[in-house]
Amino acid sequence: MLKIGVILSGCGVMDGSEIHESVLTILAIDRAGAEAVCFAPDKNQKHVINHLTQAESRESRNVLAESARIARGKIQDLRKATADGLDAAILPGGYGAAKNLCDFAFKGPDCELDPDVRQILSDLNAAGKPIGAICISPAVVARALGSKHPKLTIGTDPGTAGALEKMGAKHQAARVDEIVVDEDLRIVSTPAYMLAGRISEAAAGIEKLVAEVVRLARVAGPKKTPARV
Amino acid sequence: MLKIGVILSGCGVMDGSEIHESVLTILAIDRAGAEAVCFAPDKNQKHVINHLTQAESRESRNVLAESARIARGKIQDLRKATADGLDAAILPGGYGAAKNLCDFAFKGPDCELDPDVRQILSDLNAAGKPIGAICISPAVVARALGSKHPKLTIGTDPGTAGALEKMGAKHQAARVDEIVVDEDLRIVSTPAYMLAGRISEAAAGIEKLVAEVVRLARVAGPKKTPARV
Repeated sequence: MLKIGVILSGCGVMDGSEIHESVLTILAIDRAGAEAVCFAPDKNQKHVINHLTQAESRESRNVLAESARIARGKIQDLRKATADGLDAAILPGGYGAAKNLCDFAFKGPDCELDPDVRQILSDLNAAGKPIGAICISPAVVARALGSKHPKLTIGTDPGTAGALEKMGAKHQAARVDEIVVDEDLRIVSTPAYMLAGRISEAAAGIEKLVAEVVRLARVAGPKKTPARV
Repeated sequence: MLKIGVILSGCGVMDGSEIHESVLTILAIDRAGAEAVCFAPDKNQKHVINHLTQAESRESRNVLAESARIARGKIQDLRKATADGLDAAILPGGYGAAKNLCDFAFKGPDCELDPDVRQILSDLNAAGKPIGAICISPAVVARALGSKHPKLTIGTDPGTAGALEKMGAKHQAARVDEIVVDEDLRIVSTPAYMLAGRISEAAAGIEKLVAEVVRLARVAGPKKTPARV
């Protein structure tokens, strides 16, 4: 059974993983007959936002422990993720991707990546294993693999698209129910809540993204040489 | 467009709403062409559980603010829910239903209901509007409407089933992908994570439950007289 890593960044759209996107990803992986293997970095969130009032809360929460809420406790420290142990990985969106996996939300194209995020994305890509990026997560992929000029979408927002291009990505506009596939680099992206007004719109794109990531993982299988040097 | 209330109890299976069940409910409502209207009680959670370690955490979290994570901020105090404003309501599971909506997790059949939960369930039932209960939430419905002897399922666990019967319910065993329908009282239930080992199993039952709740809400429309006195 294919093992698809799901890299979470907390639990809630404003300071962590977007919950709908995360659950829809896990569901689509399961329905594809693959196994979702959840990971998150074991560190404090950048901050905590009250999702009712949108105010910052004076408390600290751990990214891994909060992500465990989405994973029903079945989750591991991202440090333990290896390209050998996975057939692919998918990053759901939510501000957590841009606050906890990197600091794109604060620094835009000058952002820095969490070192464990950088490592697993770099290793998977070098092994020819596919990566899926949902919503704002293509910013994470652009930072990790920008030197390879990945084709990515974050939907249609010109400011965000421009920031991704500054990091080396080639941005391609897409509708909410579309995916963009970089066949060479084996990277799939979809806008989800960058554009979605309803959960069913986000689901349409995410289901396509998961199907394509699973197809890529099945077609080629693991490679021992880099997809592109 | 039908308005289906979704009554949340926090954000995470161990101390709040089961996240997968909640998201799958909201998705199925949206796909049915109805509107999910989220509510939760504005009060502190019974406690906070670290979902990684399963240890109780020394902090307090508000049920409404945490539920807002699942609802992406679009949620109201349960006190504002009215039977006139809704066509039906669905309660996802998770320990939050048995800890924050009532105290069934601690007192079993001697549990007490949150007063706002009691009010909305009683009013909806009196108006002939359907109620859906997922996972452990049939315990909440049994406490609210036990005097009417609702037919309910929590799956197959004899202890939990017995506790529901002590509150007046007629328990009917069901598989994970099945629903139990009380046609007279217009109450639908499904076991979800009381039995599910995989998210797709929970989804199968929840999709049937939502379809049946929507069907019941459409067929009869709102009534001004009690379904049963």
